[in-house]
Amino acid sequence: MIVLTGRPQRPSDFVREPFFTPSGGFCPFCEGHEEKTPPEVLAFRSSGPANGAGWSVRVVPNKFPALRVEGELGRQGEGMFDKMNGIGAHEVVIECPDHQVSLADLAEKQVRDVLWAFRCRTLDLKQDRRLRYIVLFKNHGPAAGGMLEHTHSQLIALPVVPGRVREELDGAASYFHYKERCIYCDLVHQESQAGIRVVTETERFLVVEPYAPRFPFETWIVPTRHESHYEDADQASLENLAWVLRATLRKLDKVLERPAYNFTIHTAPLQESAMAHYHWHIEIMPKLTRVAGFEWATGFHINPTPPEESARFLREVGVV
Amino acid sequence: MIVLTGRPQRPSDFVREPFFTPSGGFCPFCEGHEEKTPPEVLAFRSSGPANGAGWSVRVVPNKFPALRVEGELGRQGEGMFDKMNGIGAHEVVIECPDHQVSLADLAEKQVRDVLWAFRCRTLDLKQDRRLRYIVLFKNHGPAAGGMLEHTHSQLIALPVVPGRVREELDGAASYFHYKERCIYCDLVHQESQAGIRVVTETERFLVVEPYAPRFPFETWIVPTRHESHYEDADQASLENLAWVLRATLRKLDKVLERPAYNFTIHTAPLQESAMAHYHWHIEIMPKLTRVAGFEWATGFHINPTPPEESARFLREVGVV
Repeated sequence: MIVLTGRPQRPSDFVREPFFTPSGGFCPFCEGHEEKTPPEVLAFRSSGPANGAGWSVRVVPNKFPALRVEGELGRQGEGMFDKMNGIGAHEVVIECPDHQVSLADLAEKQVRDVLWAFRCRTLDLKQDRRLRYIVLFKNHGPAAGGMLEHTHSQLIALPVVPGRVREELDGAASYFHYKERCIYCDLVHQESQAGIRVVTETERFLVVEPYAPRFPFETWIVPTRHESHYEDADQASLENLAWVLRATLRKLDKVLERPAYNFTIHTAPLQESAMAHYHWHIEIMPKLTRVAGFEWATGFHINPTPPEESARFLREVGVV
Repeated sequence: MIVLTGRPQRPSDFVREPFFTPSGGFCPFCEGHEEKTPPEVLAFRSSGPANGAGWSVRVVPNKFPALRVEGELGRQGEGMFDKMNGIGAHEVVIECPDHQVSLADLAEKQVRDVLWAFRCRTLDLKQDRRLRYIVLFKNHGPAAGGMLEHTHSQLIALPVVPGRVREELDGAASYFHYKERCIYCDLVHQESQAGIRVVTETERFLVVEPYAPRFPFETWIVPTRHESHYEDADQASLENLAWVLRATLRKLDKVLERPAYNFTIHTAPLQESAMAHYHWHIEIMPKLTRVAGFEWATGFHINPTPPEESARFLREVGVV
C-alpha cells in the first residue's frame, strides 16, 4: 500500500460524482499546452523543438506522482510495521494531441506509436537497476478511475515486484515445473482449438475471453509466440498488436456502448532475464459491475456473464 | 471466480447508473411483504407466525443466489482448466423492518440483533461440513455495490477457504511462528499505546485506522481479547460491538457525509478449531476512490489520506 504523504486529502477533497475535464475547459494534455506539464521524457514528432507542438505521442512525468525517482529506498521498521520511501517513476503517455478522441478512435499508426512509446520508456527505465517492475495501464472513463478526459495511459515503475505479480509468476512457474510447457502457450493452443471463447485471432495474437473471467467481458490479448517481456516485442509484433488492440477496443465499444475500462500489460520483472514459463499479455477489464464486500474479502468475483457468451457477442460484431 | 450460468447477462442488462429502489417503489424487504422473499431461515419476533409481520431482524435466502446448497461439488477438469459446481449458501440479513433508515441510524439494540443474527446463522451453517468459510459483508450504497436501498447485509457460505483468506491466515501463522504472539493482539497493544491511529477504544474493542490502509478512512474494529472465530463471541462482546459499530458508522457518516461503504467480517474457517494465531475483526472500507488499472495489476493501492489524518478526523467528531 502506498500512502501519499505530500498532500493529504481531507474529507471534503473526495470527488463524489464522476467528472471529466469540462468540454471547453482547459486541458494540459492538448497540443499547444506543452508548458503546462512537466518537461517531456519522450515524444514522437517529425520536426520542431522538444516541449513544443507537432507531436503524435508525448510522455511526461505525472505532475502528482504516486512515486518519485529521487532518493533512497530507506527500508525501516516502525514497531511491528515496515516502511520504505516511495521510490519509482510515474509517467503519463498522452496518446494523441487531440482532446476529442479515444484510443479506439485513433488511426492504427497512432496506436502503434503508443505501444512503441510503452516499449521505449520501459527500455529506458530498465537501466535504473533499483526499478524492478513496470506497470503499464490505462484507466478509461470516470467509472474506471480515469479522471482526465484527454486520452492517455500511465506507467508506474516500482522498486519491488508486487505480490500480485509474483503470485502470477509463481503460478506459471509451478505449471512449467509440472508440464515443462508455458501455461500461456498451452492456453493459446487449447483456446484456439476450442474456439468458443475466441474473439479474434491473427498470426501473432489471440484475443480470448478467459476461462474463468473475474468480470463480464474481461478480454485478454495473448501473443501466440512465447515471449516473457513486453519490451522484447519487435516492431512487426507491435504493428500487429496495434491492429488487434484497436479492433478489440472497437468491438467492446460497439457491444457495450463505449464502456469505461481498465487495461494492464502483464509482463515479466524488469531485472529478470527471459523466462520460459511466463508470457506477457494484456488484460482488458470493462467496468460493468462493482467490486463489493464479498470480492474484497475473498478475491472471488461473481460474474453474471459466461465467457462463451461474451466471446460470441464480440466475435460477431463487425468493426470498420 | 464464480460464473453464474443460470441467467447469463447480455450487454444491455448491465446497469449504467447507480440506482436504488425508487422511493415509493415496491420493496420486498419491507414489513408486510414477507411473502415476496423466499421463506425465512431466521427471524427475531416477539410473537406471530413465521414469515409474517412483527419481526426486528429477518434472514432469508437470496432470491438470486450466487451459490446453492443442493447438489454435489463435482470437481472436474476441462482440458487445462478446473471447475466445480457452485455449492454454498447465499442469504440476506434484513436489518430492520423499516425502509427509510440505515444501519447507523438504528437503535443500539437493533444493531445487536443484527450481529446476533450473523452469529446464529454461522453456527447453523457450520453444521454442514461441506461449508468451509462464511463471508459476512455489507454493501451500503450503490457506489459500494449495494443495489437495494432497504438496509441489509449478506452472508455467503463457501465450499472452499478463499485464497485471499488463506493468505491472511498464513501471514498471521508466520508471524506467530516467529514471535509466538498473535499479530492482531500485538496490533491492538501497539496501536493502543501509540494512540495516533486510534478512533475509539472500549474494554472489548479497538477501532483503528490500520497502519498501511488500502483506502482513505479504511477503519478496523478489532476485539481486544484474542478470539479467532466471530461465532465464538459471547453476548457481552456483541452488545459492546453493537455500540462500537454503530458509533463508528455514525462517525464515518458525519465526517464523510454519509459515504457508501463495504464492511466484511474477517474470521477463521468454519471447520477449523480455535487458533492462537488468528483473530477475527471487522474491516470497513468507505468508497471514496476508485480501484483502477494499477491496483488490479499489483494489488497495491494508492491512498491519498494517511491513517493518522483520518484517525484524527474520526476521533474528534462527536456522535450522539
